[in-house]
Amino acid sequence: MTMPDREQATHRKAQGYRWEGVEERPYKDDARALFKSITRQVLFSHPDMHGELRYFELAPGGFSTLERHEHMHAVLILRGGGHCLVGEQVKRIDQPDLITVPAVTWHQFRATAAEPLGFLCMVNAARDRPQLPSPDELARLTSDVKVAAFLNGEPPRG
Amino acid sequence: MTMPDREQATHRKAQGYRWEGVEERPYKDDARALFKSITRQVLFSHPDMHGELRYFELAPGGFSTLERHEHMHAVLILRGGGHCLVGEQVKRIDQPDLITVPAVTWHQFRATAAEPLGFLCMVNAARDRPQLPSPDELARLTSDVKVAAFLNGEPPRG
Repeated sequence: MTMPDREQATHRKAQGYRWEGVEERPYKDDARALFKSITRQVLFSHPDMHGELRYFELAPGGFSTLERHEHMHAVLILRGGGHCLVGEQVKRIDQPDLITVPAVTWHQFRATAAEPLGFLCMVNAARDRPQLPSPDELARLTSDVKVAAFLNGEPPRG
Repeated sequence: MTMPDREQATHRKAQGYRWEGVEERPYKDDARALFKSITRQVLFSHPDMHGELRYFELAPGGFSTLERHEHMHAVLILRGGGHCLVGEQVKRIDQPDLITVPAVTWHQFRATAAEPLGFLCMVNAARDRPQLPSPDELARLTSDVKVAAFLNGEPPRG
């Protein structure tokens, strides 16, 4: 044993956005949800902390689930760029932009460039489960041509 | 008005680690505390979030206050590198390493390279005030030659 547990937990070095001792996990375990080419690393989660910090990485063409929930997301783009949908707004996002996803707001992240999109996401440790759009809600969302293009993987240029 | 308030708050673009609409503040307002060449931006702080995310940036040679407190720090190096003290451990840190500062643990960050050191720090929104070392505690800390060298601005090479 060259390094006690306490030491390991105090400092985690990284190589290419993979952190020592942090498991790279599937994005989520929810068979209902549609997503593509995305991984999750939980960087900080501790009983004494009221927030959690997670890192999500999308390969080019990847996207997160289109969902909403009561809890907020506080996002910082850590690597690369892409687009996101927040409510009815499609936004071009780049490292190190900040994105706030307010409560009960539809959102999705997409790696629309020829590079990975990696982002940090701070959430409350105690939080509700995501909701997926009903067919009616999806129809309402896609009635906006920009939102429809985004969800179809064709975000605006520029 | 080209952009409603809601829109501004949802997406903050950055230029050189300065975020739109985020005030660059003095590191702290505490006349007791020793620190140098460090600024603070509060990236996320919201009544519905139980955690806060702050960005601190130290110019070369800068350092944060040597302090401890009941609340934990969850740190991710966002820019550059340097050294930190956590407990009795002096560590070389680089983007994007993770550092956990456990409860009631002396700590300090130093920009020991010829580049700024910028880091994110997640904390509980509700937290106690930092404590500064007494002369006795400082004497105990500096009885370790590596810690003394660090606090004197001379961290180990390599």
